[in-house]
Amino acid sequence: MKLASLCSDQPDGRLIVVSRDLSLVADASAIAPNLLTTLQQWETTAPALQKLYDRLNAGDCPDAQAFDAQACAAPLPRAPQWCDASAFLNHGRLMEQAFNSEPIPLFDTVPVMYQGASDDFLGPTTDVPLPREEHGIDFEGEFGVIVGPVPMACSAAQALASVRLVVQLNDWSLRALGPHEMKTGFGFLQAKPSTSFAPVAVTPDELGAAWLNGRVHLQLHVEWNGAHFGHPHGGEMNFGFGELIAHAARTRRLSAGTLIGSGTVSNVARSAGSACIAERRVIEMIDLGKASTGFMQFGDRVRMQARFEDGTAGPFGVVDQRVVEYQP
Amino acid sequence: MKLASLCSDQPDGRLIVVSRDLSLVADASAIAPNLLTTLQQWETTAPALQKLYDRLNAGDCPDAQAFDAQACAAPLPRAPQWCDASAFLNHGRLMEQAFNSEPIPLFDTVPVMYQGASDDFLGPTTDVPLPREEHGIDFEGEFGVIVGPVPMACSAAQALASVRLVVQLNDWSLRALGPHEMKTGFGFLQAKPSTSFAPVAVTPDELGAAWLNGRVHLQLHVEWNGAHFGHPHGGEMNFGFGELIAHAARTRRLSAGTLIGSGTVSNVARSAGSACIAERRVIEMIDLGKASTGFMQFGDRVRMQARFEDGTAGPFGVVDQRVVEYQP
Repeated sequence: MKLASLCSDQPDGRLIVVSRDLSLVADASAIAPNLLTTLQQWETTAPALQKLYDRLNAGDCPDAQAFDAQACAAPLPRAPQWCDASAFLNHGRLMEQAFNSEPIPLFDTVPVMYQGASDDFLGPTTDVPLPREEHGIDFEGEFGVIVGPVPMACSAAQALASVRLVVQLNDWSLRALGPHEMKTGFGFLQAKPSTSFAPVAVTPDELGAAWLNGRVHLQLHVEWNGAHFGHPHGGEMNFGFGELIAHAARTRRLSAGTLIGSGTVSNVARSAGSACIAERRVIEMIDLGKASTGFMQFGDRVRMQARFEDGTAGPFGVVDQRVVEYQP
Repeated sequence: MKLASLCSDQPDGRLIVVSRDLSLVADASAIAPNLLTTLQQWETTAPALQKLYDRLNAGDCPDAQAFDAQACAAPLPRAPQWCDASAFLNHGRLMEQAFNSEPIPLFDTVPVMYQGASDDFLGPTTDVPLPREEHGIDFEGEFGVIVGPVPMACSAAQALASVRLVVQLNDWSLRALGPHEMKTGFGFLQAKPSTSFAPVAVTPDELGAAWLNGRVHLQLHVEWNGAHFGHPHGGEMNFGFGELIAHAARTRRLSAGTLIGSGTVSNVARSAGSACIAERRVIEMIDLGKASTGFMQFGDRVRMQARFEDGTAGPFGVVDQRVVEYQP
């Protein structure tokens, strides 16, 4: 099934079910007020939501409304935890090659992952306020999963079975602030402002054959100011979401609603383009000797949409946002 | 005033007011169900709680009960965000000296800070389950503050004015996992399991003259298995909480209830001892050529209590916990 959250006066939004073709929505707040509650009570809420979803798809919801991405918040406007990996190793290897930096130890065998802020996620069409262009504003197209409760020190298989929903996201990054934060060893904080999400979260079955080995086998189409930027394929992820969740849970349990991200989708084939500017820039450095593409300016837009390999739209809807100068 | 949270069937606990001398408590759930709600509605809840606190101290609460730390959860069992600094530079300098590691750039002028998990804090007396002794189990005695809403890119003065409550905490650390996570540049994740808190959160006025320049001027007394381990003084913090909060808010707004930590309390004077085992070990390396103190074993206890310089008990109560092997 497909779920989303309407913007409301409640910080966790208002739960809706979205039809399979993303045309209609049905209010689901009688089943659970919001998606976080839904995840905390999944055993009872999921069957009721599935029934509503089936009725909506059958044209049997008289109160159904048209789907409107602009009315949507992030599927989870706030999550208990947000852990983002860098599971497409091609991306990290390009970065190392361009900057001739020290290789990350065990990069091929142990996922790298940072803890992000999870209290203030952005919806799919809202403006993104940031303080300074000089911070090197960049997008990062990713896939992610939302889990049920995960016990400490579980296996990757057990972890994968905890996946409740799959999402598509834009992990905004400030590239001028990242290198210093990496050198401290304490990791990203100022370099990672609030993350944005496509409007619709889907159960893995909605992906059909595109949910395979704990990976999302869809292309992530990225446009920057209307120009095609890349369409890398999510199936090339070097660690599956089972491994990533188990990594996050090695020394802690994870609450229902925890979000785990794939990191920037990135493919070895240069023809796929990139899902972030930083990667295009390092490819320019490697291939042409210097980076010619700049980072984003206030007023710029980025649009992201997952698609099946035949070009049909993926299930998450579209993130389409403008970066604006933060006004105190 | 002094506030705490009783363990309850609600994940955010049940709000109580604690008397100035930590002897009595009064149920405050008629004012706000829990501390997080209190912070989100501070303008209306704080005056009502202050009145209840005054009545409790005046012996004018017929329903008052005895204070029982064992019944307490962390003041905030879950927080929107948890950002922990390393603001006692003596600690970091000792680490660098012992390991002859690359100095952290701008260490004297820009705070270092990591993003921690904030969905599963531990109360003051609950057992602390961890998967393996070989992970190098260590405590870290710290002070922290809980803020109201903080706008993006605010000044340190504005940030300091957002402080609502001061807390005392134990930032559990797994020392065998930290160095790898620092080398990745992505920062701590597995190395930082759930953090523990002393039971009582206090408004800054409760500290009197011990709240000065955005610092907690109390000694943090630490005992490991009943033996004195250290009593470093919080006033030696090289960045005040105003600077730390502003650092966290540079590229994001902070939600009411966000927690900002000082990092391990650490003093230049060796006579103060340490608030974590790792620091004692590096002092042994520097002074004696090798570390002789091991990390914690399952069954070990650590006790932490802030005290005024005259030896009287601080306002936060006591963290007194046992580390136990996690049972799947």
